[in-house]
Amino acid sequence: MFKVLAQDRQSKARRGRLTTVHGLVDTPAFIPVGTQGSVKATSPRELRELDAQIILGNTYHLFVRPGIEVIQYFGGLHKFMNWNRPILTDSGGYQIFSLAKLRKITEKGVHFQNHVDGKPAFISPEIAMEIQSALGSDIAMVLDECAPYPCERDYAGRSAEMTARWAARCKRAVEANASPARTVSPTNPSAAADTTANRLLFGIVQGATFEDLRRSSAQAIVDLDFDGYAIGGVSVGEPEEEMMCAVESAEPCLPKHKPRYAMGLGTPPQLLEMIARGIDMFDCVLPTRLARNGTAFTASGTINLKNAEFALDKSPIEENCVCPTCREFARGYVRHLIKAEEILGLRLITLHNLHFYLDLMNRARTEIERGTFDQFRREFVMGYKVRDVDLAASVGKAVSLPPNKPGR
Amino acid sequence: MFKVLAQDRQSKARRGRLTTVHGLVDTPAFIPVGTQGSVKATSPRELRELDAQIILGNTYHLFVRPGIEVIQYFGGLHKFMNWNRPILTDSGGYQIFSLAKLRKITEKGVHFQNHVDGKPAFISPEIAMEIQSALGSDIAMVLDECAPYPCERDYAGRSAEMTARWAARCKRAVEANASPARTVSPTNPSAAADTTANRLLFGIVQGATFEDLRRSSAQAIVDLDFDGYAIGGVSVGEPEEEMMCAVESAEPCLPKHKPRYAMGLGTPPQLLEMIARGIDMFDCVLPTRLARNGTAFTASGTINLKNAEFALDKSPIEENCVCPTCREFARGYVRHLIKAEEILGLRLITLHNLHFYLDLMNRARTEIERGTFDQFRREFVMGYKVRDVDLAASVGKAVSLPPNKPGR
Repeated sequence: MFKVLAQDRQSKARRGRLTTVHGLVDTPAFIPVGTQGSVKATSPRELRELDAQIILGNTYHLFVRPGIEVIQYFGGLHKFMNWNRPILTDSGGYQIFSLAKLRKITEKGVHFQNHVDGKPAFISPEIAMEIQSALGSDIAMVLDECAPYPCERDYAGRSAEMTARWAARCKRAVEANASPARTVSPTNPSAAADTTANRLLFGIVQGATFEDLRRSSAQAIVDLDFDGYAIGGVSVGEPEEEMMCAVESAEPCLPKHKPRYAMGLGTPPQLLEMIARGIDMFDCVLPTRLARNGTAFTASGTINLKNAEFALDKSPIEENCVCPTCREFARGYVRHLIKAEEILGLRLITLHNLHFYLDLMNRARTEIERGTFDQFRREFVMGYKVRDVDLAASVGKAVSLPPNKPGR
Repeated sequence: MFKVLAQDRQSKARRGRLTTVHGLVDTPAFIPVGTQGSVKATSPRELRELDAQIILGNTYHLFVRPGIEVIQYFGGLHKFMNWNRPILTDSGGYQIFSLAKLRKITEKGVHFQNHVDGKPAFISPEIAMEIQSALGSDIAMVLDECAPYPCERDYAGRSAEMTARWAARCKRAVEANASPARTVSPTNPSAAADTTANRLLFGIVQGATFEDLRRSSAQAIVDLDFDGYAIGGVSVGEPEEEMMCAVESAEPCLPKHKPRYAMGLGTPPQLLEMIARGIDMFDCVLPTRLARNGTAFTASGTINLKNAEFALDKSPIEENCVCPTCREFARGYVRHLIKAEEILGLRLITLHNLHFYLDLMNRARTEIERGTFDQFRREFVMGYKVRDVDLAASVGKAVSLPPNKPGR
């Protein structure tokens, strides 16, 4: 279900294609984040028009609200939100560790209280699989423990080992459920999802900032044979070099014929650097989150449209950009909307930013096919100025966001 | 520029067509309110797809932010917000009286401090015309004083007389500017707008709740010969019977071949009752404002989608509705979005509500043409349940709105 169509000669960059029940995903791919069953401020129609091939749903958020049984009643997440292209769901683990209160991790699973109404709940590897099956996602993720940064080596080692044992349990749970012999019961939540058997399951490599732990974790996860492999526990506050190092340590252990997914990152240059290191898939809240703060992406870095300098600016957010915003509206108008707190302002920047990320991946695919990716990467990274605010936002520390509105 | 195409036999309802520089407006017409250069939560493209033929811009809000000189720099409000159909602008008077601080009314004009940064400003009938000319609206409104409710007869009388004198000054100012002999100066803000000469100017009838004052005000305004006539000072907190009475008192004085516009109202039944009393045009924040509170319009009254009863509701907001929301999404999903404070939730209800209002006018036009309007009105009003919350919101008292985010 995954094919490498072209391989860069100067780097590890690959151009591939992933096949899912709901359609194709061309890689390198950017996955817009639809935390609560909606990619913030956009409609499914707009996402289709932006040529988004896949979106992400956050299991934890949907579990808390509206509740899995509600989405199941509507026939799964695709039908609930009226999106008929591929959906990847995370396991919920990351948000349990970053958002929920009073969590207690044991070998069996995690006890926690959700951040909305404090209701206690328990999630295990098996339950994480059941929930994602009920959501009907095309790509499910195993339940993992995402170690914090910084993290003691001892803790990171034990955590990565437990993550591997949990991964094995996830795989067994899915295999048991996919077995034709299993009893379909009306009280079994996974029975309703029509795509259970064809769903892809990705393992997650952990190991914090320790190269040998990253390698051993990757080896343990690959031994379990998943449909794809994610690098987790990156972009959690560590310096960029540590992030690159974590990927470089794990990547050689990952099979070439399976997709690789770096979770929860990053800035546009980081994406290209990750592609050059052999990564195929990314999800990140930066384009949607920064948009709500008035920040737009351009090839030379981000600009904040709240700034007075844009008040009389008749040019589009980015010259020659073909996104719906740049085709129709000037910076000065978008600035006015943001200053006046008009919803259309957030909408317009969100569309531009998502287009920017999706188009960057489109461009990367073309450059890999042409054999010119590495030069493109170098030139893009050199021309792009990273501002501190973007990096802070990428790990959930954007000052302008209310503390109770997070979202990976 | 206005033609009555059909006249109802059982009521005073008319089906007409108004021609402006930016296109036609079929009447009875509903005018979505674009307070700050954006009809809240919608894009110009969505408004076109909803078949909105005209929108309203609030002069006061645009004067305060971004400032008229900014919009003028962009070539007028049409170009600024990328809307190429007709725009009606109010004079700013109503918001000066309802929002601004420390206002002082004299015969010359109004001194006030704006509600955003408290900056002092002065507006006169002549300045109101200059500003609307700079905005480049297709229909401008005279500066009037909107008397409060309740209001002493003595005050109401003197206020209506001053409104008539101000109306005369507005007319003279426009005529002086439209004269081919006038000197076009770069410091004259109206010089930039290309539509000044062709802009329509509507007079406004005041007179509070006093029938004879409504009649004398109407007569005084009609004597000045405007392109259309508005009934102002309605929907300001008075009982519905008083509102109907104000219109019934003024209407016989208004010429049949000019459009009539009831400002700032109302509920769907009120609109039909006003049409039956000879009114052609309406603007109202109800469909957009209530949407942001989770309230949707249906033929049987409003429903609040926050309510738990809709959590598992697979039906659209209204059966057989052809709006973009009802064609694609279930009540249960919209409810989830509203509860989770997702922007898409507000967007979807806003689109439905605007469609409801626009479609109601479309239906009214057809029924007038068929000669069945009065029966349609009676049946609609009988089947529609008005909730107190809608009436409160119609005069700006919706509890759920922050006090600093008003908007007529």
